[in-house]
Amino acid sequence: MTNLNLISEYKSFGGKVGFYSHLSSTCNCEMRFAVYQPPQAIQQPVPVLYFLSGLTCTEENFMAKAEAQRFAAEYGLMLIAPDTSPRNRGIAGEEDDWDFGTGAGFYVDATQEPWRSHYQMYSYIVHELPVLIKAHFPAQPDKQSIFGHSMGGHGALVCAMRNPKLYKSVSAFSPITAPMRCPWGQKAFSGYLGSNQESWRAYDASELVKQLGYHSPILVDQGTADKFLAEQLMPEVFEQACADVNQPLNLRYQEGYDHSYYFIASFIEDHIRHHAIALEVV
Amino acid sequence: MTNLNLISEYKSFGGKVGFYSHLSSTCNCEMRFAVYQPPQAIQQPVPVLYFLSGLTCTEENFMAKAEAQRFAAEYGLMLIAPDTSPRNRGIAGEEDDWDFGTGAGFYVDATQEPWRSHYQMYSYIVHELPVLIKAHFPAQPDKQSIFGHSMGGHGALVCAMRNPKLYKSVSAFSPITAPMRCPWGQKAFSGYLGSNQESWRAYDASELVKQLGYHSPILVDQGTADKFLAEQLMPEVFEQACADVNQPLNLRYQEGYDHSYYFIASFIEDHIRHHAIALEVV
Repeated sequence: MTNLNLISEYKSFGGKVGFYSHLSSTCNCEMRFAVYQPPQAIQQPVPVLYFLSGLTCTEENFMAKAEAQRFAAEYGLMLIAPDTSPRNRGIAGEEDDWDFGTGAGFYVDATQEPWRSHYQMYSYIVHELPVLIKAHFPAQPDKQSIFGHSMGGHGALVCAMRNPKLYKSVSAFSPITAPMRCPWGQKAFSGYLGSNQESWRAYDASELVKQLGYHSPILVDQGTADKFLAEQLMPEVFEQACADVNQPLNLRYQEGYDHSYYFIASFIEDHIRHHAIALEVV
Repeated sequence: MTNLNLISEYKSFGGKVGFYSHLSSTCNCEMRFAVYQPPQAIQQPVPVLYFLSGLTCTEENFMAKAEAQRFAAEYGLMLIAPDTSPRNRGIAGEEDDWDFGTGAGFYVDATQEPWRSHYQMYSYIVHELPVLIKAHFPAQPDKQSIFGHSMGGHGALVCAMRNPKLYKSVSAFSPITAPMRCPWGQKAFSGYLGSNQESWRAYDASELVKQLGYHSPILVDQGTADKFLAEQLMPEVFEQACADVNQPLNLRYQEGYDHSYYFIASFIEDHIRHHAIALEVV
């Protein structure tokens, strides 16, 4: 069993938030994540809900600001919030931009030097982390779902559609829905995956939904006052792609809301409930 | 009317969180605060609930982490979170310690040089800020209450007991209840108020309750795993002082909780409700 290092722990809504580090074999370096264990986990294994965070976030933002523990405690769900990239790898340029490198792993498996030796966030989230969670925490083995915000909304959609049997449900706040077409995505995919755009399709939700679909309705909340909406997020592209293949999508435009955690907190209850229903704890 | 500078604004639970700066005549410098206007404030003036934050906090921590907006929106309460001190005054030593000077105004009116020209947080909170709020926001003029955390719990208790007509109710999370007897309080009072301990009594909740009492029950939540409990917070001193004068006190020890915002968020609903009842919005 892999060693897990508990960095700090806080009681929260009758359960506990813990921050952990471990040596990741996938990313070939130390990685961090946060876990919320609801009070129900003291008695029995519970379903697990992953949250993938956005650009510049660490494993802390979601636990400190999203107000998710209140509802995870109500429904008896474990929450997992991984960090958004490897850190301190000494890679030239890793700290130069806020939207590439550190804090911006984009949930892909990099194929390009110098990133490929550490930036394997897709496999880390989908394969390594769930095994680790099941080994160390009271998690039900076949019950997990995933959601995320912005870059993490992109990550959640990609992980879910490519692994429908692993995730019972997916939702997203202001996701990057068409990364092949937006500046953030083009920069990240060029750097991590190289110039062959065929390799990008496996990480583009609007492409994937047309190839793969998803077994259950997708919930997306998008603020209308989000300054990244038109240039980076492009929910209309994903909406059209879903319509093309009759993929059920509940895309809700929330009037006046922006890209912040104030937006996420305002609608987190609906997202937790969406997953609680799929995970059969309602 | 004093000028108010809107720094940033975020929609939250149907209302809005705004961060403001203004030139304070009391502190003789720029001061900052945050306001949450619930959706009800669009239609009509609403009661106001002040939250005083703890050591090292700014006007942001409470709005980002306490989960108060959810319930302020439910009851129709405006929330005000002031910064914890003047900043960048160029006073020798203002940045040296995390528990004195910047981020540590202790809600007193300093009488000692070099602090007295700016560190007038008691008068700022009790007198200047409410006038400003009523001038610029849809606040009901005679309906306000106050609560706080740690140093801010101390501040809330002091403000309320010395001004019972101004505040309909008071509550606190892990307050410094006997600052004259604890290291944080002794350091702050020595520096801001000087060596004459008679002048300290006006800012010590355990002294004030014996002199003044308060017109309604006081709610205090205290985590049992709070590392500051025994040395700095001393709720048992306040409890005894309340008992001596038959002051109703609902002191709740919360098993396993610490001093963090994870603790505050877990019990914020009860505190907002405590004030909502006193402010007659329930």
